[in-house]
Amino acid sequence: METPDETITPAPVPAATGITTGIAAQDWDAAAADPRYRAAVVDLLGALAYGELAAFERLAEDAKLAPTLEDKAELAAMAAAEFHHFERLRDRLTEIGETANLAMEPFGAALDEFHRLTAPSDWLEGLVKAYVGDSIASDFYREVAARLDSDTRTLVLAVLDDTGHAGFAIGKVRAAIAAEPRVGGRLALWARRLMGEALSQAQRVVADRDALSTMLVGGVADGFDLAEVGRMFSRITEAHTKRMAALGLAA
Amino acid sequence: METPDETITPAPVPAATGITTGIAAQDWDAAAADPRYRAAVVDLLGALAYGELAAFERLAEDAKLAPTLEDKAELAAMAAAEFHHFERLRDRLTEIGETANLAMEPFGAALDEFHRLTAPSDWLEGLVKAYVGDSIASDFYREVAARLDSDTRTLVLAVLDDTGHAGFAIGKVRAAIAAEPRVGGRLALWARRLMGEALSQAQRVVADRDALSTMLVGGVADGFDLAEVGRMFSRITEAHTKRMAALGLAA
Repeated sequence: METPDETITPAPVPAATGITTGIAAQDWDAAAADPRYRAAVVDLLGALAYGELAAFERLAEDAKLAPTLEDKAELAAMAAAEFHHFERLRDRLTEIGETANLAMEPFGAALDEFHRLTAPSDWLEGLVKAYVGDSIASDFYREVAARLDSDTRTLVLAVLDDTGHAGFAIGKVRAAIAAEPRVGGRLALWARRLMGEALSQAQRVVADRDALSTMLVGGVADGFDLAEVGRMFSRITEAHTKRMAALGLAA
Repeated sequence: METPDETITPAPVPAATGITTGIAAQDWDAAAADPRYRAAVVDLLGALAYGELAAFERLAEDAKLAPTLEDKAELAAMAAAEFHHFERLRDRLTEIGETANLAMEPFGAALDEFHRLTAPSDWLEGLVKAYVGDSIASDFYREVAARLDSDTRTLVLAVLDDTGHAGFAIGKVRAAIAAEPRVGGRLALWARRLMGEALSQAQRVVADRDALSTMLVGGVADGFDLAEVGRMFSRITEAHTKRMAALGLAA
């Protein structure tokens, strides 16, 4: 645990997560005075930006599998939304004097590998992936936002606010399972694989990126320890399980 | 030549094209009272909408060939812009009581075939295609806009106003040719093929779609005859040739 910087005022405990951190009470200029916090946020924005750009590409690719023009347009709309998230994150990196491409570069391999290992083989797998990916990203943004300085938090929440385009997937997947119950077993396995690959690549990123993982395990943002990271991953996994059950899939 | 409807007031001759048409002086409600004009505009909006959706898909696909993240983001930005054009055209079709998917459907085969026959084999071919496609689309929008009722014209010009994202391609293609002059010969052939395939598919569409071609050859919008259509294609081809020369390519 680090000694809090003298500019830190204690932040209120966010009721939803039980986290206490002085960082949340600071703006970017104050928080970024700590070079470790700055490096961690650059990593975070770089990872999110690359994630959005990669999501754009994959959703645009999966749109080709759509059985109708209307379905294709729905997935294309999600892809365009991801691209605009990418733009906001990239512009923020530029604004704080960073080169977006350099900030993104360290995360390319893990995210490309995730997508390579989880290329959907049909439209339903694509829909489940879009829905699962969108939901997990949204949960992650929400968890992380509470740990950030006020300026970065505003950005992350703004990007979050514009997610949730994947709701249209729910009805289509349920209808497909109702029409052909065996489809449910295959998609349940698929969703488990998506979550497994996501966690495995996330672990790889955390192992590789000191600044980011130091922030996540409490070295920078005080009051946030390894047990809390574990709880964060538990909450995200539990939410995933509930969503899969709502889809009619055993997670 | 049709007898002008009694609500028609003579339109000023657009200086650039020399076209006179009563339709240009009417709004949608007045112009659409003629079922042949209505059908022609539904065809036009359907063709443009499908074209934008297909362009979105292909640009997103071509973005994968980008040598850097910055280049990838440029092509992805163009793709997202095309998607938003699609949304505007689709929403307009819905607004006038048409089913966008049905309006787009007749143009799918020709546009898909165009893209199938012109899949770029590398990043430079992708850039040239993005630039050529964006420019021709923009020329075509401008030509057609002058022939439309005021409401449809406003929409088409608004979509046009947001094109021109392909300018970034020019510098990159010129630099590649300067570095390796033989690249110029290959790309010149490629640009010729793009134009040839575009014209050949356009011809197929005109042959198949009575309402659209009737409008284009003056059966609905008076003062616009077959010779004028020929001149329109000439102007578009000449502009293409000039652009290719500016790129350092013999067209």
